[in-house]
Amino acid sequence: MDDRMIVPGFLFNGIHAGIKDSGRKDLALIFSQSPAAAAGVFTTNRFAAPPVLVSRERLAGGSAQAVLINSGNANAATGEDGLKDVRLITADISRRLRIDERLVLAASTGKIGERLPTAAVLDSLDPLIEGLAEDRIGIAEEAIMTTDRFPKIEYRKGSAGGADIAVCGIAKGAGMIEPGMATMLAFFMTDAVIEAASLDFLLREAAGRSFNAISVDGCMSTNDTAIVLANGRAGNKPLARRSAGWMSFREMLFSVAEDLARAMVRDGEGATKLIEISVEGARTLDHARKAAYAVARSNLVKAAFFGRDPNWGRIISALGASGVPVDPEAAELYFEEEPVFLRGTGAGFDPERIRQIMAQPEIRLRIRLGAGRSSFRMFASDLTYDYVRINAEYHT
Amino acid sequence: MDDRMIVPGFLFNGIHAGIKDSGRKDLALIFSQSPAAAAGVFTTNRFAAPPVLVSRERLAGGSAQAVLINSGNANAATGEDGLKDVRLITADISRRLRIDERLVLAASTGKIGERLPTAAVLDSLDPLIEGLAEDRIGIAEEAIMTTDRFPKIEYRKGSAGGADIAVCGIAKGAGMIEPGMATMLAFFMTDAVIEAASLDFLLREAAGRSFNAISVDGCMSTNDTAIVLANGRAGNKPLARRSAGWMSFREMLFSVAEDLARAMVRDGEGATKLIEISVEGARTLDHARKAAYAVARSNLVKAAFFGRDPNWGRIISALGASGVPVDPEAAELYFEEEPVFLRGTGAGFDPERIRQIMAQPEIRLRIRLGAGRSSFRMFASDLTYDYVRINAEYHT
Repeated sequence: MDDRMIVPGFLFNGIHAGIKDSGRKDLALIFSQSPAAAAGVFTTNRFAAPPVLVSRERLAGGSAQAVLINSGNANAATGEDGLKDVRLITADISRRLRIDERLVLAASTGKIGERLPTAAVLDSLDPLIEGLAEDRIGIAEEAIMTTDRFPKIEYRKGSAGGADIAVCGIAKGAGMIEPGMATMLAFFMTDAVIEAASLDFLLREAAGRSFNAISVDGCMSTNDTAIVLANGRAGNKPLARRSAGWMSFREMLFSVAEDLARAMVRDGEGATKLIEISVEGARTLDHARKAAYAVARSNLVKAAFFGRDPNWGRIISALGASGVPVDPEAAELYFEEEPVFLRGTGAGFDPERIRQIMAQPEIRLRIRLGAGRSSFRMFASDLTYDYVRINAEYHT
Repeated sequence: MDDRMIVPGFLFNGIHAGIKDSGRKDLALIFSQSPAAAAGVFTTNRFAAPPVLVSRERLAGGSAQAVLINSGNANAATGEDGLKDVRLITADISRRLRIDERLVLAASTGKIGERLPTAAVLDSLDPLIEGLAEDRIGIAEEAIMTTDRFPKIEYRKGSAGGADIAVCGIAKGAGMIEPGMATMLAFFMTDAVIEAASLDFLLREAAGRSFNAISVDGCMSTNDTAIVLANGRAGNKPLARRSAGWMSFREMLFSVAEDLARAMVRDGEGATKLIEISVEGARTLDHARKAAYAVARSNLVKAAFFGRDPNWGRIISALGASGVPVDPEAAELYFEEEPVFLRGTGAGFDPERIRQIMAQPEIRLRIRLGAGRSSFRMFASDLTYDYVRINAEYHT
């Protein structure tokens, strides 16, 4: 294990608890050796899952010490029973870890509408705890993955507030990636000294630029969760707004979050392409965001990118239907640096250059509205046969 | 030709003008032998195509006598040139038909961003006019189709205002079917006597229950058009609101529109299933509509129906993310009459019965929100390999 991937004071593990039929790892534990300042952002889905309800409630206290995550079962739409299961399991692990139960958070991802196999989970807690180690973050990541094709871990070292600090993030994404962070889980660990309120502020800002700026299929899940824990082991001067280290810590956290988000889109179910959509020159940020999402969510646009079809008409059509008062004469569209739509009509682009661009695994769409100074950038995946295959398979 | 499919005073034709490379028919003409009361509803896309702009402008006068429709080229995003082309072509045909140019409407569907082959269209106008006949509505329908797999013609005969009247509708749909009637064209012909203002009122109401209550892929086109012409040949007493015949004419128009809309969904690109989504018990109509659309647009839900996967968790998740303040404990979900989600959790349904339901070509989803008395019903298609194939094919 690469020793640069260690965050002082944090231990990790992941095992197979019997939730996934496949026998793959399905239960992960993140443990801070001392209580950590903590913050979280969660799905706004009205059917938020029991683990989301419990974690949200406990994070009101601003600190946490352990996060128990399972994959293979979302424990969503399970009603009162599902809530009891989370409370039972987190109470049990808090006794074994000898910490306050309110310092244990929970997150789940997987199938909706089935009870957790509680007994199997409880039976797995001892081996899960026994195996905790500072260099097992990769094992924990493995245990939170569902249809992910590759693990998503980002790590940064830097200095802030007069000390060396580390920031590490792990995530699972794949399906249902959309604003409000659909079926994604992300966990950030840092040894920085920072208050929970500051952490909360930065996490929300980071999420807005990362997990809330990606779209795979327009669906938002019941379980989306991003949690950050800061255990203060670095001993830096507290990172408050306007403090010297604030900006460097912010940069580290943002870059971890953005790289995780980008990895989620690249790993979107069935995705073969990463499409970066930049909307510039909007009158308001809301307009820029709406315009970008309208393009990112268009199945016709997404299918065209899968087919390497430079069908700019579909992009223009999605933009025109976005609800943003776009001026057709002022709007411009570029594939990378190549103009394809200018002054209300096609720009007579070089087909050879466009063909090259469409063959790239990452393509940048630039939309200029010519209406103001607001901009928004987001990432989307294409719509492919594999997306349909993965999501249409009989589950019986 | 079935002689019941005649609307007195209306003539039709369709030919190949050279717009489609395939050699299939691509230019249709609907002609009323006398000026007709007329109304239209159009796309709200900001990049509305030149034929939409021209028809909208001309319909302000409340009457029309001819509609020229081409398929294979949307004449959209063609700027000032595209507008000139429409004016040129409609002026030319008005001279040949010896009618006022302002009584000629236009509609186009097909590829965005390319100029119409104006010369070829002009050369085709004489044979198009020469072939006009009252029994050629099926030929006209053929000429407006693009990726449609089957023609969409609905015909009703009835009596209203003391006379026998006929209502006929033809449509093309297939891709991009979504609120605001995406890439759909529909034309209604009737011999009823009715004022343009009344016609406009009824057409808007009909569209709200038909073309604006269907979803194939969440995309709205630049060219959506629904036009109704009433030439008054039936000689009935004028159908004004509160008049005796109003309700029966309304019923005929609505049933034609609804059956055309349903046919469009069944013929949605790649569609294998028609999903009827009824939301009941919403606090407001807006809530009911939003909830229904959230489910209808969810790629995960649509792919699950393609795979015959009774994955109600995805429906619940889409509902929860709709922005409607759904109460998880009050919401209920049924596949046909079978409850699948009740009181915040799965309803423990009979898997055999659900399997039967999922195998049906038409499936009814019923969502009860338990929050009020508003309801909304709509139709959606599933998401299939063929949808991706059709929309991802290289166009070069």
